[in-house]
Amino acid sequence: MSELTFRGLDIGRIEPGEDLVEAILETTGDEYPLQDGDVVAITSKVVSTAENRLVDADEVAVTDRDERVGDVTGLDPREVAVIYEESEVLGAIPVADIGEELILERAVDREAAEEAIEKMPSVLVTDRNGRICTNAGVDWSNSPEGMMTVLPEDPDESARRIREELETQTGVDLAVLLADSEIMGAGTMDLAVGCSGIDAVDSNFGRTDLYGEPKIGGLDLIADELTAGSALLFGQADERIPVVVIRGLDYDDGEGIPNSGGLIRRGLRKTIQLTARLKAREWI
Amino acid sequence: MSELTFRGLDIGRIEPGEDLVEAILETTGDEYPLQDGDVVAITSKVVSTAENRLVDADEVAVTDRDERVGDVTGLDPREVAVIYEESEVLGAIPVADIGEELILERAVDREAAEEAIEKMPSVLVTDRNGRICTNAGVDWSNSPEGMMTVLPEDPDESARRIREELETQTGVDLAVLLADSEIMGAGTMDLAVGCSGIDAVDSNFGRTDLYGEPKIGGLDLIADELTAGSALLFGQADERIPVVVIRGLDYDDGEGIPNSGGLIRRGLRKTIQLTARLKAREWI
Repeated sequence: MSELTFRGLDIGRIEPGEDLVEAILETTGDEYPLQDGDVVAITSKVVSTAENRLVDADEVAVTDRDERVGDVTGLDPREVAVIYEESEVLGAIPVADIGEELILERAVDREAAEEAIEKMPSVLVTDRNGRICTNAGVDWSNSPEGMMTVLPEDPDESARRIREELETQTGVDLAVLLADSEIMGAGTMDLAVGCSGIDAVDSNFGRTDLYGEPKIGGLDLIADELTAGSALLFGQADERIPVVVIRGLDYDDGEGIPNSGGLIRRGLRKTIQLTARLKAREWI
Repeated sequence: MSELTFRGLDIGRIEPGEDLVEAILETTGDEYPLQDGDVVAITSKVVSTAENRLVDADEVAVTDRDERVGDVTGLDPREVAVIYEESEVLGAIPVADIGEELILERAVDREAAEEAIEKMPSVLVTDRNGRICTNAGVDWSNSPEGMMTVLPEDPDESARRIREELETQTGVDLAVLLADSEIMGAGTMDLAVGCSGIDAVDSNFGRTDLYGEPKIGGLDLIADELTAGSALLFGQADERIPVVVIRGLDYDDGEGIPNSGGLIRRGLRKTIQLTARLKAREWI
């Protein structure tokens, strides 16, 4: 049988400094005891909260640069300051300018949507320790009033620590993923930002296809596929399902999300070069 | 209870022109009868095969432009010809040049991987009827010798037709998604290219968060999250699981994948403009 089960866990609201592993084990308890091979996907937001990775906006030191970048992007200069501290800023996407019409058209509450867009009309594209993400993962939502949440300092390390604590207390072998929402085209999807106990990328490149030919592909982004599927259950707003247990997957052991920074930068440069050559050769 | 089940169906190898709906119903049969609300995710490859969307490479008329583009990208000029016929070509990504080392490092069979890369050292970035994809979905793998598979002419329409046939024969309400592998950073993931009976994008923008604040986000790419999760079960090579049934999801009715072409083009242009302004304002 080939079947996967994604089970969402309502662990309630996690308060800053709370023991996340205990909250997970209380919820799984006798009702859904963890088993060997389970993958536990957790939103990075709830891990950050448990790790006290909160920044009080009023205590942020804002520089002239932060004011200028805030001015050009429409972002709160205090958020800009935190993003620059957390990452290298590569660029900016004017989300409202591109998609405001689409967003408002689909909003459940137009007024609240307008307020949200006003607060974040753009996002910064950032390189955080070799991984590309938006706003360095800094986020006001689901944070206490006036506070921003930043990503765990080392999300792979957080995943490893949670995995080991869960394993010690349950005696089963697990994998743990940290998930964060990312903009992809016309919407968002949860991708993996931290990983422990599972190989994030499946290594099947060069396998043969149904007709015996070597197959392009097979570098499946397993970790991202797991977090994307989990996002169907994660509470994106006032729901409280920040943890999903995936059961039934056959996977390889591994640690960490591969760094994408160098690859994506090199990829962008080489893609622009080849595109220019291609466009020239279309005609002559 | 908040739980989703992803069940892979081994429907065997689908031959050109075969009745896909019959093959699905034979496999679900008494063993896993379809239920109201099930989402049926199907690889576009198997839908194309059933729809006879195969092109004999030897019968493709190749122009000088196709030869020149083949020369600069390393792609077979016959494949180039088919891609230009299927889509508007926006650019090219030199996959081998960017990531050959990474790919070979992870290959299960190095020789086969080298052969695969030699056959496809680059991919073209294409706009197919307003949707951005690579190589217009044209693909040699899992195709009979010397044949290329092209996407269904209208993937949304194919999804609708399959959904209606399945519904007529089973008497239950379903959603159907067509999935295709796409390059994302350092690997690939299955995204939705066709959709019927489900709203591809969740409309929660403007909902409030745990702390009562309007929340950025909530444009969840439901269809892509479902195909990404299904990819954990799809046979990427010689496995034969091209259909996954997802059970337990609460979703809205809808039709079609929103066109991304205009949005992404506009987005790229505006992103480059804002990034230039941002970089200038970092300093003065």
